[in-house]
Amino acid sequence: MDLQFKVIKSDSKTNARLGEYKTKWGVHKTPMFMPVGTQATVKTLSTEDLKSVYADTILSNTYHLWLRPGEDIVNLAGGLHEFMNYKNGPILTDSGGYQVFSLANKKDIHEDGVYFKSHLSGEKLFLSPEKSIEIQNKLGSDIIMSFDECPPYPCSYEYMSNSIDRTIRWAKRGKLAHKKSESQALFGIVQGGEFEDLRKKSAIETVKLDFDGYSIGGVSVGESKEIMYKAIDYAVPYLPKDKIRYLMGVGDPIDLIEGVMRGIDIFDCVSPTRLARHGNAYTRGGKINLRNNKYKTDFNPIEEDCDCYACKNHTKAYIRHLIVSDETLGSRLLSIHNIRFLTKLIEDIRIHIEDETLIEFRDDFKTKYYGEKNE
Amino acid sequence: MDLQFKVIKSDSKTNARLGEYKTKWGVHKTPMFMPVGTQATVKTLSTEDLKSVYADTILSNTYHLWLRPGEDIVNLAGGLHEFMNYKNGPILTDSGGYQVFSLANKKDIHEDGVYFKSHLSGEKLFLSPEKSIEIQNKLGSDIIMSFDECPPYPCSYEYMSNSIDRTIRWAKRGKLAHKKSESQALFGIVQGGEFEDLRKKSAIETVKLDFDGYSIGGVSVGESKEIMYKAIDYAVPYLPKDKIRYLMGVGDPIDLIEGVMRGIDIFDCVSPTRLARHGNAYTRGGKINLRNNKYKTDFNPIEEDCDCYACKNHTKAYIRHLIVSDETLGSRLLSIHNIRFLTKLIEDIRIHIEDETLIEFRDDFKTKYYGEKNE
Repeated sequence: MDLQFKVIKSDSKTNARLGEYKTKWGVHKTPMFMPVGTQATVKTLSTEDLKSVYADTILSNTYHLWLRPGEDIVNLAGGLHEFMNYKNGPILTDSGGYQVFSLANKKDIHEDGVYFKSHLSGEKLFLSPEKSIEIQNKLGSDIIMSFDECPPYPCSYEYMSNSIDRTIRWAKRGKLAHKKSESQALFGIVQGGEFEDLRKKSAIETVKLDFDGYSIGGVSVGESKEIMYKAIDYAVPYLPKDKIRYLMGVGDPIDLIEGVMRGIDIFDCVSPTRLARHGNAYTRGGKINLRNNKYKTDFNPIEEDCDCYACKNHTKAYIRHLIVSDETLGSRLLSIHNIRFLTKLIEDIRIHIEDETLIEFRDDFKTKYYGEKNE
Repeated sequence: MDLQFKVIKSDSKTNARLGEYKTKWGVHKTPMFMPVGTQATVKTLSTEDLKSVYADTILSNTYHLWLRPGEDIVNLAGGLHEFMNYKNGPILTDSGGYQVFSLANKKDIHEDGVYFKSHLSGEKLFLSPEKSIEIQNKLGSDIIMSFDECPPYPCSYEYMSNSIDRTIRWAKRGKLAHKKSESQALFGIVQGGEFEDLRKKSAIETVKLDFDGYSIGGVSVGESKEIMYKAIDYAVPYLPKDKIRYLMGVGDPIDLIEGVMRGIDIFDCVSPTRLARHGNAYTRGGKINLRNNKYKTDFNPIEEDCDCYACKNHTKAYIRHLIVSDETLGSRLLSIHNIRFLTKLIEDIRIHIEDETLIEFRDDFKTKYYGEKNE
């Protein structure tokens, strides 16, 4: 499916761009941050909560939904939107590749696909490019991903070289298997690790297959920020200007800004909800951990001028009490705040692209964010 | 504080009555069911969620808040309403008595109070009638409870007899210690277990001390429904008609109806949220457990005509998936449904008192509720 992506404005000083894409859910502005709803739920949040933090496109996981409740049940419900009653915007599903390589046990990688054991039941399973697309067809998400290998880091040049070649062959097979190209956009995934020529080759060969958009994968698996930024720089020049560029699994505030400056349009990450469950909140002065004793009697919101439900209604002292007492309302309030922090950051980024002041914004944001030591 | 409780209508066929009481939060209708927010949060629910299920007065726990975050922090926040930002209605706190006897370790009961170890830290603690009232004064709840002993079941006549005498002496001491009688109503608690004369004596002696309302305690600690109903019948005739009668810790749907018919005005119980965490939902056809395989492809709401957020937005199949996948949204949706089930039941009870059809309603409700075997 053509997402009718168009670049509305390109920054003259960086590779950043303002854009939009269209689906039956409406017009969607880029840059965009997508919250992650691994198991057909953005952890602790309802659809109403997601609306309140201005979530648009959200992500869900093919691997998890395949295992539970199973793609046939989701299909029977009328697809993922109906199953989870998410009608605020599109849903993007990943291919399951990343989870197979990070969660599953005893992986056995073949040309036809990957044999492995379920992380839940230990059951023997097989996932292939065709199977991944078939599951995503049944899930009925709006944007689906090619099945790729996400190699570990570090990884030898030789391994990575063979891996990207196979991922390209898998991408081709997945594209052929895609039965719902009229209603679901299919993205190719660029891999290649830290190797400039492999990122380039992966990008060029993937683009030749002509996808509806392009993801850059394997950048969040343990490398430094510098290596991540370089991996983006290696790939972006070979990706078409008129297609969405999606940086997978990246959600650190600084990385969102740096990613956008390098030409990225959309991002997803579990960080805002995962950090929340551990008591962490993003603030413009850096991440803070609400478990810290100093918040015991701090009766101010996490951020004075934040418009999220948590900041408008609750104090740090109360949220601290909830987190320390293992009350799930604590994780929920922090998830709301953290996602809103990122969607607001993206709004600010868009304004600064419009105003051609993104570099100054980045510098100022970084100074404040790293200014006081993170807890 | 005088709650200005008044009986608006007495049922001619049962002891049921329609009433109302007043606080700075407004006028509150009885009969009423109060959700329980043990640790200054009704588990999984936000203030908005509580509004959506028509919660009015809610309950919180002196023992838990004393231990964490501590009554001084709550006081510094401006009291419990400010601390948890609950402004939908009054907050009632229990005395901590029940928790000391059910949760704490190595209890040592003396005339002056109870020595025990914290269930959290093992720290040695002491709670007395004066201390309990002092904590509740600092918490700033609207309705506070006398410190009582809640004896185990079964319990010898002799033990119970000594216990109610001490509880009456403790009630007297607590009343003398109450420093905020202009802003906080103080209730006495009737104990006496299954013994008719002890319930009567406990009621008469407690009423002599002239409290703002009367609780009936110790009815939910393991007895049969018949013993519970009898315990209510033993006490109610000796409680003044113009004061609130509060049945502590009871929330089973049938017990709400039976309790109201016996003259009870207000109820609290952790059941709706606790059952939710275990995947259970109330329906008029009995309790169901969403973990049951038969709900895997049940794309209907828990109850078709329920007006709660869960039923208006989600299917049994989806909630089942959330519960099975340990996603907290599942407990939250079931908590919302279960509390709304009870507040709606109370609304129906009020209508049937008004119409003098409560007995027919009870018979019809019981037939349907027990009609199909509970899971």
